[in-house]
Amino acid sequence: MNNFVYRNPTELIFGRGQLSALAEKINQHGKRVLLVYGGGSIKRFGLYDKVMAILAEQGCEVFELAGVEPNPRLSTVHKGIALCREQKLEWILAVGGGSVLDAAKAIAVGVPYAGDVWDFYTRKAKPQEALPLGTVLTLAATGSEMNKSSVITNWETREKYGTSTTFPAFSILDPEYTFTVPRDQTVYGICDTLAHVFEQYFSHTQEIPLQSRIAEAIMLTVIENAERVLQDPENYDARANLMYCSTMALNGTLAMGVETDWATHSIEHAVSAVYDIPHGGGLSIIFPNWMKYVYRENLPRFRQFAERVWQVDSAGKSDEEVALEGIARTRAFFERIGAPVRLRDYGIGDEQLDVLAHKAVPFGPIGRFKKLDGDDVREILRMSL
Amino acid sequence: MNNFVYRNPTELIFGRGQLSALAEKINQHGKRVLLVYGGGSIKRFGLYDKVMAILAEQGCEVFELAGVEPNPRLSTVHKGIALCREQKLEWILAVGGGSVLDAAKAIAVGVPYAGDVWDFYTRKAKPQEALPLGTVLTLAATGSEMNKSSVITNWETREKYGTSTTFPAFSILDPEYTFTVPRDQTVYGICDTLAHVFEQYFSHTQEIPLQSRIAEAIMLTVIENAERVLQDPENYDARANLMYCSTMALNGTLAMGVETDWATHSIEHAVSAVYDIPHGGGLSIIFPNWMKYVYRENLPRFRQFAERVWQVDSAGKSDEEVALEGIARTRAFFERIGAPVRLRDYGIGDEQLDVLAHKAVPFGPIGRFKKLDGDDVREILRMSL
Repeated sequence: MNNFVYRNPTELIFGRGQLSALAEKINQHGKRVLLVYGGGSIKRFGLYDKVMAILAEQGCEVFELAGVEPNPRLSTVHKGIALCREQKLEWILAVGGGSVLDAAKAIAVGVPYAGDVWDFYTRKAKPQEALPLGTVLTLAATGSEMNKSSVITNWETREKYGTSTTFPAFSILDPEYTFTVPRDQTVYGICDTLAHVFEQYFSHTQEIPLQSRIAEAIMLTVIENAERVLQDPENYDARANLMYCSTMALNGTLAMGVETDWATHSIEHAVSAVYDIPHGGGLSIIFPNWMKYVYRENLPRFRQFAERVWQVDSAGKSDEEVALEGIARTRAFFERIGAPVRLRDYGIGDEQLDVLAHKAVPFGPIGRFKKLDGDDVREILRMSL
Repeated sequence: MNNFVYRNPTELIFGRGQLSALAEKINQHGKRVLLVYGGGSIKRFGLYDKVMAILAEQGCEVFELAGVEPNPRLSTVHKGIALCREQKLEWILAVGGGSVLDAAKAIAVGVPYAGDVWDFYTRKAKPQEALPLGTVLTLAATGSEMNKSSVITNWETREKYGTSTTFPAFSILDPEYTFTVPRDQTVYGICDTLAHVFEQYFSHTQEIPLQSRIAEAIMLTVIENAERVLQDPENYDARANLMYCSTMALNGTLAMGVETDWATHSIEHAVSAVYDIPHGGGLSIIFPNWMKYVYRENLPRFRQFAERVWQVDSAGKSDEEVALEGIARTRAFFERIGAPVRLRDYGIGDEQLDVLAHKAVPFGPIGRFKKLDGDDVREILRMSL
């Protein structure tokens, strides 16, 4: 186990009807609120009205930033920052999925910063302060509700980067709000959650038995609840399990004392910065190919993955055979739940492989399980065609 | 899964040499410090000198409360509160095991409280404020380093109660500081950690697959590292795994959405309030007997425990047979590592069973897996003779 420092102050408020906790939070954070949300699905299923009613009851003055994109854009973040400054808003309430939360985090750290908030994403500066942020989550996927990460796309430069911003002060997670998530978004959320575990599970760090088992626990639980949810979208227990898994997958627990990778996320960010494809779909395409490209770096790890997560019967098989069977089952699982597994599923060919490969390594080689340069990334993308 | 609210703001600073982080913490919390420690083992292995050197370098004025007992006493807590008030101390640094930390927590919430701090333990009042508290942990056991719990003994009334007090602001966990923990204390720590998992794992809450697997992950990891540590007390990896497990066992993770029990802890507190036996030793005696007394309340849960934690081969066996085999293996494990499994191992007979049974249920029936009154407790204690 490596040395580590862990701190996560987010208050998680989980379960049916927990939106009622919002009233008390308003008293803590103030009456002048920026409400951030996406394309209007929260209006269709009534959550917008419920949130606005609570804000009104508490005497809040609410300013709205609607229309946050699925790959949230810097231009939208700029609008939110301007609104907070002009109206002297005290805190931000994000209602939506990971994209909405990520945009809200960018706004939260952008408001008190004298420069351009994009500096944080291009590693030119680190956030020192933030407006308080609360969230009401409507999608089990990114884990953004209980971490400091935020991923923003600069559509002018076709760059998509993640960085460390600020923890939500509180996050309200009611699994019922995910009942109406469309099938494809549900699938992408499942892929995203598994991808977060993969990024932290495939590691060379020795003597991490508990961290490994917790990662395996999340993967097993996601896999066994994925098909339940797809067959029965209003199954509270299955939705709750997936939502809880997606939070636990990226709240820092799995990274305690572990060297993590994150190369696949960088590659996916490059792809979706150019093609604007769904993040979860990009990950389900790239991850099995990343695995095939790197598994020889640590065969015992891939063997453990195959045995413990996919119950591959390893009797009489070489480590390599077992590892490859685990990777094949990962890809087969993605196919079974209807996730894309080839770039061509999104109509992406080999026209821009060089551009993508270059964009994936903007600050030098990526990944720590196997350090990847532009040539490695191009090969993984080629395998993903 | 039940609804839940989770928040844990403690900063965990884990690994070799992490004591160096203390200097920065002093700058955050102040120069007037109460240093709380136990019987002097931290002096024997040099930790006291290291801590004092850092405090001196940072210009701290240090006031000491030494001699905190293994079952920390209210009288000692009172001394610490008086010292903090007289000297207007700004924060508390606890260096030691769970008892030292629990005493420090009691002092932290006692200082700003106008009444007697014992009110918090007898449920007459709830802490509203606390002095900041930092800890340097020297024993893998109680999890006190990352939770709000504190257990204090009132030696005058022979009462031992736990309550919710305050989170440490930071906790420094260097597994090397546990190298010199004597064998019996190491064993008690292992028993305590497993007992914390048991209290949260044996639950009737349905649909908690991830919480259950994380609990099983901790149990498996404790079991596989216990004998490594006993054979090789300076094995860093094994010590680190146990220390990490003991923290994760009681930092709130396992209780997310789960109805927990805690009856066995109440029974043990009654026993050690009267006989002053080690907490971990009391738990290893009582827990297998509690299991035998309650397992019929939820056979599938005990079956899962037997299969997943003890790898009981359940082919051709009834649920009851499998459950009992799991319980037998639990007791056998305690015996194998040298933990006591009968009250008579501490010279305790049946003289005071009524007194103990009465003391274990001071605020009414205990436990939620099976609600236990005084008669139930007396029977479990009788089984434990």
